[in-house]
Amino acid sequence: MNLESYFSQKSKLINAAIKKSLPKDGSIISKAMRYSMLAGGKRLRPIFVLLAAELCGGKIENVMPAACAVEYLHTYSLVHDDLPAMDNDDLRRGKPTSHKMFGESAAILCGDALLTESFDLITKSKASDKNIKEAVKILSYYGGYQGMIAGQAEDTLEAGKWKNKNKAFLKKKLYFIHMQKTAALIMASFKIGAVLAGADRKKVKALEEYAKNIGLAFQIADDILDVYADKKLLGKKGSDKDNNKLTYLSFYGKEKAEKDASAYVQKAKNAVKMFGKKSEILNLIADYMTARKY
Amino acid sequence: MNLESYFSQKSKLINAAIKKSLPKDGSIISKAMRYSMLAGGKRLRPIFVLLAAELCGGKIENVMPAACAVEYLHTYSLVHDDLPAMDNDDLRRGKPTSHKMFGESAAILCGDALLTESFDLITKSKASDKNIKEAVKILSYYGGYQGMIAGQAEDTLEAGKWKNKNKAFLKKKLYFIHMQKTAALIMASFKIGAVLAGADRKKVKALEEYAKNIGLAFQIADDILDVYADKKLLGKKGSDKDNNKLTYLSFYGKEKAEKDASAYVQKAKNAVKMFGKKSEILNLIADYMTARKY
Repeated sequence: MNLESYFSQKSKLINAAIKKSLPKDGSIISKAMRYSMLAGGKRLRPIFVLLAAELCGGKIENVMPAACAVEYLHTYSLVHDDLPAMDNDDLRRGKPTSHKMFGESAAILCGDALLTESFDLITKSKASDKNIKEAVKILSYYGGYQGMIAGQAEDTLEAGKWKNKNKAFLKKKLYFIHMQKTAALIMASFKIGAVLAGADRKKVKALEEYAKNIGLAFQIADDILDVYADKKLLGKKGSDKDNNKLTYLSFYGKEKAEKDASAYVQKAKNAVKMFGKKSEILNLIADYMTARKY
Repeated sequence: MNLESYFSQKSKLINAAIKKSLPKDGSIISKAMRYSMLAGGKRLRPIFVLLAAELCGGKIENVMPAACAVEYLHTYSLVHDDLPAMDNDDLRRGKPTSHKMFGESAAILCGDALLTESFDLITKSKASDKNIKEAVKILSYYGGYQGMIAGQAEDTLEAGKWKNKNKAFLKKKLYFIHMQKTAALIMASFKIGAVLAGADRKKVKALEEYAKNIGLAFQIADDILDVYADKKLLGKKGSDKDNNKLTYLSFYGKEKAEKDASAYVQKAKNAVKMFGKKSEILNLIADYMTARKY
């Protein structure tokens, strides 16, 4: 199987579904929602929803609304993260950020709207009411104050306050930030796909463990790319250092960072051996987490 | 029945449930969530959830999580609405606003967290999975880009751009803003309570119509209070005029505003005659919308 063509095939389906789901009423908020949702992006999280459903015997068309939902939630987090009061980024994927295009208040409301809409989308999946309720719980948990928002908060609010803390404390903090900021939503994506497809507990757990580990590998790779990647390919300037953020590199250096990312990739692969031959695509994705160039 | 004691009795139950539902992990976001949720407020929307459920034969303890959910959603909208990029208010209910207390980025994330959590709370109601799914749809619709956010957007983004528009256009705009900004969430509250209690379509429709009309009356009264109320009682300075907002008063003057508000109150009462003797409390609440002093 070729991962590139797999991603490209799935992201085409997802892009079509996202386009169809977006509002077309011409209001500023609708325009801002369309702009940020259609500004590119690899659609990894929605691909994970579809993949998890397929691995658990579900049909991708049944979970497509939920796949869109996680992308809406992910995109809202980027729109708010880019705000002047947060990371203050002007570019995202090589294009002006939402607040640069539509102003700060429209960007705040656009993020709010994307987040709210993500929960409506979840309910449009074709699954039992019980499983849809469970998917709503998963999205709100991993997207909420115990999940992604906790990571954003530590990452943004605590930036620059790390100077006088001891190393053990900071390492724990960094793990927490990576878990919540990045791994949480990847975990949510796999779990939502699996749960909507009616997977048993064992499969959900295996995919959750896999997702956690590729999420951690992904974030370490992201910290490396923030410093070493071709900024044109990356579509943004690396801003972690300017923002005094805690990064994997600043602690461990590039060599150890790469080694640790590989270890997480291996852990991820081990977690999903139960899927047998079907796990091939999961292995390719795990490898991709550390191999990507932007 | 005495409305004041009815409100006080119900809001005590709601406050206890809200306190129990709030995070206690000591993080900045959790502190900000607690602060904004416990900063007072009449708890009207959660009271409406409980009331609708009771009117439709449900038990209030079964819908209490949903009642908390609408208050979370309402509170997030206030936190974001007060932000410097939005209405830039320093005081809310006589206390410093969230961004004044915790900083702008924490206030953004706090609002995001409250909004996300509201959907988790909905799922904790004791009702059929089907009705919970329906309640999630209602909350996301009325809270989303077609509901409350549309009202906020018009109200904030378009403020000051009304000068060269004709009166008929502006009157339509004002109705839209009042419907979306205020009536939408009151409609959601009544509908969620009714749906979770398993009400039939006719009852849901009647309560929706009632809610729409008290919502419109409420917002006209709000515009009047923004200018005429005792600012100490109101707990904030009237800021509509400073912000060049479209208000009922600026169009129609105080006398007609009061007359129209009363007409909406009457419409609301007419809509719920089917509840017979049980509608007494609904009538008292409708009257309260225009009688309140702050």
